[in-house]
Amino acid sequence: MSGLPKSVKIREVGPRDGFQNEDETIATADKVRLIELLGRTGLRRMEMTSFVRPDVIPQLADAGAVLEAVTLPDDVSVSVLVPNPRGLDGALAHRDRIDEVSVFLSASETHNEHNVNRSVAESLAGLEVVLKRAGEEGLRRVAVIATSFGCPYEGYVDPARVREIAATLVDFGADEIGFGDTTGMANPIQVGEFFHAARAADGLAETELTAHFHNTRGQGLANVLAALQAGVTSFESSFGELGGCPVPKGATGNIASEDLVSMLEEMGVATGIDLPRLLEASRAVRDVLARPLGSHTLRAGPIEWHRAGE
Amino acid sequence: MSGLPKSVKIREVGPRDGFQNEDETIATADKVRLIELLGRTGLRRMEMTSFVRPDVIPQLADAGAVLEAVTLPDDVSVSVLVPNPRGLDGALAHRDRIDEVSVFLSASETHNEHNVNRSVAESLAGLEVVLKRAGEEGLRRVAVIATSFGCPYEGYVDPARVREIAATLVDFGADEIGFGDTTGMANPIQVGEFFHAARAADGLAETELTAHFHNTRGQGLANVLAALQAGVTSFESSFGELGGCPVPKGATGNIASEDLVSMLEEMGVATGIDLPRLLEASRAVRDVLARPLGSHTLRAGPIEWHRAGE
Repeated sequence: MSGLPKSVKIREVGPRDGFQNEDETIATADKVRLIELLGRTGLRRMEMTSFVRPDVIPQLADAGAVLEAVTLPDDVSVSVLVPNPRGLDGALAHRDRIDEVSVFLSASETHNEHNVNRSVAESLAGLEVVLKRAGEEGLRRVAVIATSFGCPYEGYVDPARVREIAATLVDFGADEIGFGDTTGMANPIQVGEFFHAARAADGLAETELTAHFHNTRGQGLANVLAALQAGVTSFESSFGELGGCPVPKGATGNIASEDLVSMLEEMGVATGIDLPRLLEASRAVRDVLARPLGSHTLRAGPIEWHRAGE
Repeated sequence: MSGLPKSVKIREVGPRDGFQNEDETIATADKVRLIELLGRTGLRRMEMTSFVRPDVIPQLADAGAVLEAVTLPDDVSVSVLVPNPRGLDGALAHRDRIDEVSVFLSASETHNEHNVNRSVAESLAGLEVVLKRAGEEGLRRVAVIATSFGCPYEGYVDPARVREIAATLVDFGADEIGFGDTTGMANPIQVGEFFHAARAADGLAETELTAHFHNTRGQGLANVLAALQAGVTSFESSFGELGGCPVPKGATGNIASEDLVSMLEEMGVATGIDLPRLLEASRAVRDVLARPLGSHTLRAGPIEWHRAGE
């Protein structure tokens, strides 16, 4: 198993993806405290919030207040999710607080219809506008393709179609493409083949490709391993295993950042993230939410190696 | 990722490892019903119970009654765990109901002392007696080495020492060696290197080598993938993610059989196990235990692929 990357980038998405999926809105002051705890871990990328309609997602109605209140180390790149031009307007009102914007659509027509009530072509047309304007504002641009490895409504999604959508988004100015296993249908063989093909595809060779796996059926870190072996060096995850897709109901979502960091660091793949500090942030969010979280390392604690003479 | 095995063997250990680790003893009739549900899944190997002192492990005090009551397909190989000659006597009282015996020790001296109050050398001397007599009785012999990838007390465990113990057990007559990641400290790089070396080791080349992983830090299926890539074709797992080691406290244990089967079948590695029937057994044990279980696929359900034209 030689040839794994020496280091990877991890984007922490819990403050957006996780906080959005809680039934009860987390108080702004708690969000700020948790985000600042995350900022102390050494992570360099964080998706902090989203500018969406507050009547649709009240959990993130305080997006601007959170952005203005947090204090983070200078080397943390802050991204916000924007679904449309109006969302970008919201983000740009806090231009000096953000470094990146993320946009999204689904590779599957049915999932995209369910999620944003548009066809994929309509979504792409809208994202072109957002991505171009974000570029003019000097923002780094991330585009995430949900259901890249399978759709709960349509099932199989053709990887060639996903690559085609990705290349279109790059053409629109995206600096990074995220591939989401939105309902945890990917398996390691599929992931390996997918990223080998994507990294070699016309129009994607110069683009950072990010893997966003869910742990829906327990296979999240196995898919990470397969992606690493295919040369992927960028991942998204969520502290505490917060967030993710509520389809199927009751399923767990994103892979836990602390499980990801634990495995990578044990394998000698540097993350730049301090696991005990990350666990401190995860314990804090567990206390705020007052329920058990899905993260395994949060329950078990980090591996402690005792070697003779140490 | 070519070269994965086309099929693997899975030993279901929930009826022993899982039932033993429940605070409340499961009624014998429930055990029999659950074991028979497992027997309908297509699995070929099951560790059904253990002959241990009932004052120490009352959860398995009905070992003989369970063995005598269950009806399973003829092709299911039934094993029982026996810690010592007295345990073997207990098992042999039901000789016509069993096909295999499993014995165990830890690679780490400290863990072995904590677990069975003996040195590794003392354990090996005792197991020699048990293995030889089991062989005379025509039983297939499985020897499991706990803490093969790390010990919660000693930390690092030298793989060369684990191989040496394994070769000794083969010399004593073991037909199969199981390597247990007892407290979930293994990572995929380590697992790959471990099994590459073990499969090439003197004294082990002709022996079936089995991987027994825990999901303590979420990495169980990633370790399965690494073991597959190193040529391992035999695994142990537990339905519902029951059982495992209570160190560290609160940690999850064995990988869930349904998560393992889901990933393997999705990758095209045949298990012979029918996932919907396995989930039926896992739902049944969840109902008996009346608590949420760790299994991910039990919560999310199996992947349903819908392809055009199907």
